[in-house]
Amino acid sequence: MAYEFKLTRHVDFAETDMAGIMHFSNFFRFMEAAETAFFRSLGLSIYPRSPDTVGWPRVHADCDFKHPLRFEDLVEIHLLVREKGKKSLAYTFIFRKLNETPIREVARGSVVTACVTRDKVTGKMLAVPIPQSIAELIEAAPSSLLA
Amino acid sequence: MAYEFKLTRHVDFAETDMAGIMHFSNFFRFMEAAETAFFRSLGLSIYPRSPDTVGWPRVHADCDFKHPLRFEDLVEIHLLVREKGKKSLAYTFIFRKLNETPIREVARGSVVTACVTRDKVTGKMLAVPIPQSIAELIEAAPSSLLA
Amino acid sequence: MAYEFKLTRHVDFAETDMAGIMHFSNFFRFMEAAETAFFRSLGLSIYPRSPDTVGWPRVHADCDFKHPLRFEDLVEIHLLVREKGKKSLAYTFIFRKLNETPIREVARGSVVTACVTRDKVTGKMLAVPIPQSIAELIEAAPSSLLA
Amino acid sequence: MAYEFKLTRHVDFAETDMAGIMHFSNFFRFMEAAETAFFRSLGLSIYPRSPDTVGWPRVHADCDFKHPLRFEDLVEIHLLVREKGKKSLAYTFIFRKLNETPIREVARGSVVTACVTRDKVTGKMLAVPIPQSIAELIEAAPSSLLA
Repeated sequence: MAYEFKLTRHVDFAETDMAGIMHFSNFFRFMEAAETAFFRSLGLSIYPRSPDTVGWPRVHADCDFKHPLRFEDLVEIHLLVREKGKKSLAYTFIFRKLNETPIREVARGSVVTACVTRDKVTGKMLAVPIPQSIAELIEAAPSSLLA
Repeated sequence: MAYEFKLTRHVDFAETDMAGIMHFSNFFRFMEAAETAFFRSLGLSIYPRSPDTVGWPRVHADCDFKHPLRFEDLVEIHLLVREKGKKSLAYTFIFRKLNETPIREVARGSVVTACVTRDKVTGKMLAVPIPQSIAELIEAAPSSLLA
Repeated sequence: MAYEFKLTRHVDFAETDMAGIMHFSNFFRFMEAAETAFFRSLGLSIYPRSPDTVGWPRVHADCDFKHPLRFEDLVEIHLLVREKGKKSLAYTFIFRKLNETPIREVARGSVVTACVTRDKVTGKMLAVPIPQSIAELIEAAPSSLLA
Repeated sequence: MAYEFKLTRHVDFAETDMAGIMHFSNFFRFMEAAETAFFRSLGLSIYPRSPDTVGWPRVHADCDFKHPLRFEDLVEIHLLVREKGKKSLAYTFIFRKLNETPIREVARGSVVTACVTRDKVTGKMLAVPIPQSIAELIEAAPSSLLA
C-alpha cells in the first residue's frame, strides 16, 4: 500500500506574479498535481472518465508559506497520506526547493477530499465509502513522517 | 440585433507576472469574459446547462500586444462581431486602458468560435447551424468599427 | 475605520474545471481580489508602485468548501478583518451565492498577510510595523460578525 | 545552433474547463513553458535575474485548435524557431497528443517575442538587437519542418 509520492517540477513564468515570486494560489494547484500523479502512479485517476466511478472534490485546503518560490526554481512536492477515512482522504504536502543547498522546506499544505458519486437523477454529489479497489492501494503515512 | 459589447474590469494581482505586467495568456481570458458577458446581455449563455443546446468551442485565437497592462489598470474590452457565419461566430476584441489620458488601444485580439452540439452516443462535438433563436439576436458589426 | 468589504463577481468560464464547478484554487484568487478592492476602497494598494512602501505577502491561507460554485454564478466575497496585528493583518472571507434563494454561504476562507518592506541591498522581505497611515484606516471586525 | 525543442507534459486537472477539455488559454501557457525550457536547455533564461540582460515580451500570439486535449493527456509541445530577426524571435509550436495512436497534431500556434532591455530611468522597455551570446546559439528551423 502506498502512502507518499514525490512530484518535481519547475516554476513556470506564468506562475509568477509582479512581486517576482510564485503566486500563492499555485501552491494549491501544485498540491492537486501531486495528488493526481499519486493516483496515476497507482493506476487510478482522481477524475475517471467512466461515470460509474468516484470523484474527489476538495472540502478543505490550507497552506503555510515560509519562503518564496521563484521562476525556474525546481520544486519537490512531497505528498503524504495523513488520514484515510471511510469516505475521505486527507493529505499533507511538503514543498522543498531543490535548487539550493541546503534543501529546505518552503511551504506546507494540506487538502481534505471527499469520495463522492453523482446522483444520476439530480446530478448532486453524494459522499460514499472509498471503493475497496482504491482503499486497498492507499494507507496513512507513519506519523513520524508528518511531524 | 447586437454587434458589440463593452466589458470593464481591473487587472487582478494574480493576473500579473514577474515582469510586472499582465500575463499575456490573460488577454485571452479577458476576451472570453467579454464574449460571455455579451451573450449574457442577450439572455443567452455560451455554455448552457441544458444538454440540448449549443456550445461554442474556440477554433482560433490571436492577439497583438502593443502596450502592457499593469496591476489595477482599468481595462475596457470592446467586443465586436466581425463575422457571422452559418456555423460560426468571429469576434474582434479591442483592449483600451481607461485609467490614463489619452485613452489608448493597448492590444487587439480575435477569436473564432464554432457552433456545436455533442453527439449523444459518441460525445463528439459536431458543428451545426447557429439556432435561429440566437442568430436573430446577433449581427456583424459595421466594417467601419473594425478598421 | 474600516473592517469589512463586499466584492461581487461572476464565475468566469475559465475558472471552471471538468467537474463543472469553479476550481478550488480560484477561491483563493477571489479572496485576494476582495482584499485588493478593500485596499483600493481606502485609497491604498496592496502592491504600491513606489518602492518605499510596504507589501503584503501571504503567510497562510485556508478555505472550507461547502457547496460548489458554477459558471455564471454571482458570488459575494465578504471580507472581514479578523485580526490587526502590529506587523500583520488576518482576514476572514465568506463566500455567498447571490443567484439562488435563500442566499447561502458556500465557502469560508482565511488569509494572513505580513507587512513587509524589501531590504534595498539584499532584496529580502523584512516584516515591519504597519505604517500609521494604513493602520489608522483599518480595524478588526466585531467578533459577532466572525462567528 | 539550436532551432527546435520538445517539451512533454500531462494536462493538469486545473487546466481543464467545464466543457471537459483543456481551456484554450492554457495552450498559450504551454507555448511559453516550451520556450522557457528551450532557453534553459541552452543555458539561458527568458527572464534573467540580472537587470543588465534582455527580456522577451510577447508582441503577438495565435493558435489554431483542431482537436481538444483532456485531463491526463500526454502532450508534446514541439517548438520550432520560425524566424530570427535582428531584435526578435518568432516561434511555431506544434501540439501533439502522445497517448493515442496514431499520434496526431491537435493544435498549432505561434508567438513573436521582442528582445528588450529596460531603460534605467523611465523603466520603459526598449527593443534592442539580440545579444551575440544568445544569437550564436539559436537559428531558424529549416522551412521543411514548418510546412
